[in-house]
Amino acid sequence: MSNAPYRLVLLRHGESEWNAKNLFTGWVDVDLNDKGEKEAVRGGELLAAERLLPEVLHTSVLRRAIRTAQIALDGCDRHWIPVRRSWRLNERHYGALQGKDKKQVRDEFGEDQFMVWRRSYDTPPPELARDAEYSQFEDPRYAALPPELRPATECLKDVVDRMLPYWYDAIVPDLEAGNTVLVAAHGNSLRALVKHLDGISDEAIAGLNIPTGIPLLYELDADLKPLTKGGRYLDPDAAAASIEAVKNQGK
Amino acid sequence: MSNAPYRLVLLRHGESEWNAKNLFTGWVDVDLNDKGEKEAVRGGELLAAERLLPEVLHTSVLRRAIRTAQIALDGCDRHWIPVRRSWRLNERHYGALQGKDKKQVRDEFGEDQFMVWRRSYDTPPPELARDAEYSQFEDPRYAALPPELRPATECLKDVVDRMLPYWYDAIVPDLEAGNTVLVAAHGNSLRALVKHLDGISDEAIAGLNIPTGIPLLYELDADLKPLTKGGRYLDPDAAAASIEAVKNQGK
Repeated sequence: MSNAPYRLVLLRHGESEWNAKNLFTGWVDVDLNDKGEKEAVRGGELLAAERLLPEVLHTSVLRRAIRTAQIALDGCDRHWIPVRRSWRLNERHYGALQGKDKKQVRDEFGEDQFMVWRRSYDTPPPELARDAEYSQFEDPRYAALPPELRPATECLKDVVDRMLPYWYDAIVPDLEAGNTVLVAAHGNSLRALVKHLDGISDEAIAGLNIPTGIPLLYELDADLKPLTKGGRYLDPDAAAASIEAVKNQGK
Repeated sequence: MSNAPYRLVLLRHGESEWNAKNLFTGWVDVDLNDKGEKEAVRGGELLAAERLLPEVLHTSVLRRAIRTAQIALDGCDRHWIPVRRSWRLNERHYGALQGKDKKQVRDEFGEDQFMVWRRSYDTPPPELARDAEYSQFEDPRYAALPPELRPATECLKDVVDRMLPYWYDAIVPDLEAGNTVLVAAHGNSLRALVKHLDGISDEAIAGLNIPTGIPLLYELDADLKPLTKGGRYLDPDAAAASIEAVKNQGK
């Protein structure tokens, strides 16, 4: 007997210190700023208002996702649920762009190259040197990984490839056990998951943006297919406004 | 081959809203107050200064311990480590005393009875009714437990009995895998663990107080016996001062 429909809640972290400065962040572990904390509080309020109460949390190993989840769960009295974390839910590694100003990169390399690095499915930015300032190659949280799993850059396709094993092996079992599962992660790791869930093509995914701090509910059938394509944002108006804002990033 | 000596760090949560009001708290899920948050920050600073960096976290399912750990780990850049939680690390359930003023209880029942309820090893306070204001019997975080595991009151012996299975089955394997393990918990669940580790008698444990917010390091041999009885507080002077203050609680 299946526990379907399964309830999966996606939550993109609130604004970080580097989002506000318009820098490429990737695996650099910057914190939320005040606005980001407020977004996380609002996310918790939306979960509480809807009585959509997570029973298991999955996060990346990056502070902005971890803290977004902590704040949101504290707000809906779910601070005590089991927590699982994985680098496989991390933001896309932005390679040599990490730490760089988005506008400067666009000015230096031109709009076309800028958009390829930001939005092409399978063209990663140049690699980041292992000993570069914003390299995480030696970070203790990745030290147990064999070197070939520690990226020097990633395109969205790379994110799909490294995220999906975690989806199947860690998140799906929690769903199948009947839990409401919260995944607190990043723009690109969540785009990778939504691409998979909704069956979005490699081309069409470029046009998909996920707003920050607004819980996105997917109800999934026994085959883990969405009952409603695209899921449902708990605050649809705010989501629509935020999607517009993200589209204008770097402009 | 053994990974001993194992490194176990105990951290009692900082001051809570009810500690400050001198109320019996037990399983009531009150938050840290400002002082408690500052204590947690200081705990993280002590861990960072000593380069004593946890690799796995175990907490109770109560907010004051969870947040103390979050704040302390954030402060030593270990926010990303695996987290495991269990009601078996909860504070002692104070039965019918939960929510009551310590001074009023002492005045009403007398110093002797008050001290028996606070410090006797095997005499629990009166039971708390399942439907009482401060009962957690129906709390969703315990709903999956069979009713006989949901206490109506506990003495310290009861805490030892329900804590030890978690020690052996969840914490010890993490130590034996070579991890530095942080246990963020409560006055009585940590007293129960220290009693076990140091082989303290049922009588002598009454005199042991564990200060809030100061990491306590135990190095354990391959048989999980402390290399140094009593472990070592990362700030011994503050620990000594705090132990004095706790002794005067309710006076």
